[in-house]
Amino acid sequence: MTIPISANNNVNVSFLDALFSATSAVCVTGLAVIDIGDSFNIFGRTVMALLIQVGGLGFASVGVGFFLLTRKKVSFKDRLLIKEALNLNSLKGIIKLVKSILIMTLCFEGIGTVLSFIVFSKDYPPLKALGISVFHAVSSFNNAGFDILGNFQNLIPYANNVLLNLTTCGLIIFGGLGFFVIKEIIQKRSFKKFSLHTKIVITMTIGLLSIGTILIKYTEDISWLGAFFFSTSARTAGFTTHAMGTFTNATLFVIIMLMFIGASPGSTGGGIKTTTTFTLFQSAYSIATNKHCSAFKRKIPNDVVMKAFVITLLAGVVVCVDTLLLSSIEPDYTFMQILFEVVSAFGTVGLSTGITPELSEASKIILILTMFIGRLGPLTIATIWSFKPMSSVSYSEETITIG
Amino acid sequence: MTIPISANNNVNVSFLDALFSATSAVCVTGLAVIDIGDSFNIFGRTVMALLIQVGGLGFASVGVGFFLLTRKKVSFKDRLLIKEALNLNSLKGIIKLVKSILIMTLCFEGIGTVLSFIVFSKDYPPLKALGISVFHAVSSFNNAGFDILGNFQNLIPYANNVLLNLTTCGLIIFGGLGFFVIKEIIQKRSFKKFSLHTKIVITMTIGLLSIGTILIKYTEDISWLGAFFFSTSARTAGFTTHAMGTFTNATLFVIIMLMFIGASPGSTGGGIKTTTTFTLFQSAYSIATNKHCSAFKRKIPNDVVMKAFVITLLAGVVVCVDTLLLSSIEPDYTFMQILFEVVSAFGTVGLSTGITPELSEASKIILILTMFIGRLGPLTIATIWSFKPMSSVSYSEETITIG
Ligand SMILES: [K+]
Ligand SMILES: [K+]
Repeated sequence: MTIPISANNNVNVSFLDALFSATSAVCVTGLAVIDIGDSFNIFGRTVMALLIQVGGLGFASVGVGFFLLTRKKVSFKDRLLIKEALNLNSLKGIIKLVKSILIMTLCFEGIGTVLSFIVFSKDYPPLKALGISVFHAVSSFNNAGFDILGNFQNLIPYANNVLLNLTTCGLIIFGGLGFFVIKEIIQKRSFKKFSLHTKIVITMTIGLLSIGTILIKYTEDISWLGAFFFSTSARTAGFTTHAMGTFTNATLFVIIMLMFIGASPGSTGGGIKTTTTFTLFQSAYSIATNKHCSAFKRKIPNDVVMKAFVITLLAGVVVCVDTLLLSSIEPDYTFMQILFEVVSAFGTVGLSTGITPELSEASKIILILTMFIGRLGPLTIATIWSFKPMSSVSYSEETITIG
Repeated sequence: MTIPISANNNVNVSFLDALFSATSAVCVTGLAVIDIGDSFNIFGRTVMALLIQVGGLGFASVGVGFFLLTRKKVSFKDRLLIKEALNLNSLKGIIKLVKSILIMTLCFEGIGTVLSFIVFSKDYPPLKALGISVFHAVSSFNNAGFDILGNFQNLIPYANNVLLNLTTCGLIIFGGLGFFVIKEIIQKRSFKKFSLHTKIVITMTIGLLSIGTILIKYTEDISWLGAFFFSTSARTAGFTTHAMGTFTNATLFVIIMLMFIGASPGSTGGGIKTTTTFTLFQSAYSIATNKHCSAFKRKIPNDVVMKAFVITLLAGVVVCVDTLLLSSIEPDYTFMQILFEVVSAFGTVGLSTGITPELSEASKIILILTMFIGRLGPLTIATIWSFKPMSSVSYSEETITIG
């Protein structure tokens, strides 16, 4: 990315801007300090598409592996099912898993390319339209949110194109479910048979899409299609069909909350994740009503609940610290612009009120770090940094008064 | 409050404004839609001072009672100590407790009145200065933040008066510790002998005051005295020595975070409380390092940790929902102004960027509700609303993937 041949001849790309773009691509964020369509030639664009795909696939594979690891505590029957379904004990099993992920990715991106091509071929010569369609499908399914139409215009020219809007939303939604969930939907086809994880992911995805659409439609002068598109795109993809600089504070705040929640685990999406959010509220409800924390007639383990809270706390801390730093570095922007930019980077969303290209170098470095923290998850980083075996020192309990 | 005789003859106080002021006084918030000094006569001011004192004392007593209730799980030895110290099993014990709270209150407010009188007597005739001093001491020790100098000027004329600044800070800090902690400090006088609760409260209070002072001094063109004053005042009292409309976003954000954290349990202060904040971070640290959640060689019980997280979550939800509502009702204000106003009401702080008097009726009603929720605590309200005996249905555990 940083080698000059990636750039168009007449455009000078600084090292920091190239680093920002590469980070943005690997972390599938889509925040852009320079315009991909304008500044990069075909070679640069291909590199970007590959980085996005590798970033997306890599995280998806790691995500699925992590998912299977954390499912150690499920019932013996469930474990047998997983073993049978994925054959994970052997090397052959892993190859089979990666293969199925690759096939699913190709299927979704293939269908996406065809549908996008129908739209783009009307405005561009066939070969260029094909290039744009492939890039767009890869970018959508991996929730990257980069576009190559040029001039920072993203999908604004296609704001009212129903086919492109729905194709993009479909790719984003399926990409954001996580491969494990897609696999289970394809294999089991009945909500009752799904695992608790899949049930929660589906419920939360439908719930957040609906609530998001209604809130955006209510707070902004926008079509239902536009509201649905933003509600879908905000929870990680980061495509935009309207210039967001004119949006009201209320709408921007709704989008910030959606960006913070993000997509589902094991997907290419960011944020604290749908399952985490579900666990938070379910646990609050269970404490207020003095019940065990359960969902769909299954108890959610205590350590999972605790982890959900800690992830959310650390996410909140990262957002607050970064917002404070950027507010003091960039006194000329409004608090909303800065908060929006930070949450967008943390959730690897890539939506922006338009201030990204004008930020100072210090701010760009902070956003690069935020994207990495958001991508890996703050708890993962904290754990890698400081994990020690369980201490054997045991203290006596003493309660304190809370709240 | 709502009867006309409270108001000065030439000022017309609407029902909603009177309700707002009364709520603000009982909840010891200090957010003012009308100016107490200008709009209320001596009778009105006395009613305000009494409301503040009753609000402060009532919550303090209830707080101490609640504190003792939640300490059910301490060791037998500790329980014996508490019983001996407070004699709570008998009616006599409760009377003794209330009496000691009254005496402490009178001592602190008496000293505060004398020190304030030294300052105010230079600018006002003796009787008026005495009235102002009493009101100011009551308002400070109960963390109410109301002033009666008139014209919404709060303590701005005394920004550089070291004696008044330090007197006010002292009253605020001791008022914000909670009576149980003050009692323990007076009785035990050695940090090592303190209960875990008192150790955490003292550590957090000193920590937050220091960090707050440094951050405010760093982000704003202000004296160290001013930074210390705001750092003290923001965590619930809500007095101000500078017009906050000119503050940078970074400073306002620091103040928002301090307001959200608030004072200590069993005090007149609001926010999620110092002990809650301590527990959150200690628990995050313990999960990242795979240790038990402990502090000062005592284990913090799991249900206390969970309660801390739920309180913070619900506080966050209340702030987000209210901010969203107010942003859509008041499109003319910046996001920062609205967020600041909401957190200020929730933390019963009463600082404002100056928009309170111009808000619409719907917004004022939302802020009144927010003050009550903040005062009682969102978890308390959720529990009262929906508490049921522990359900006997037990489900099998199933883990999900988080983050
Ligand atoms: K993205
Ligand atoms: K207050």
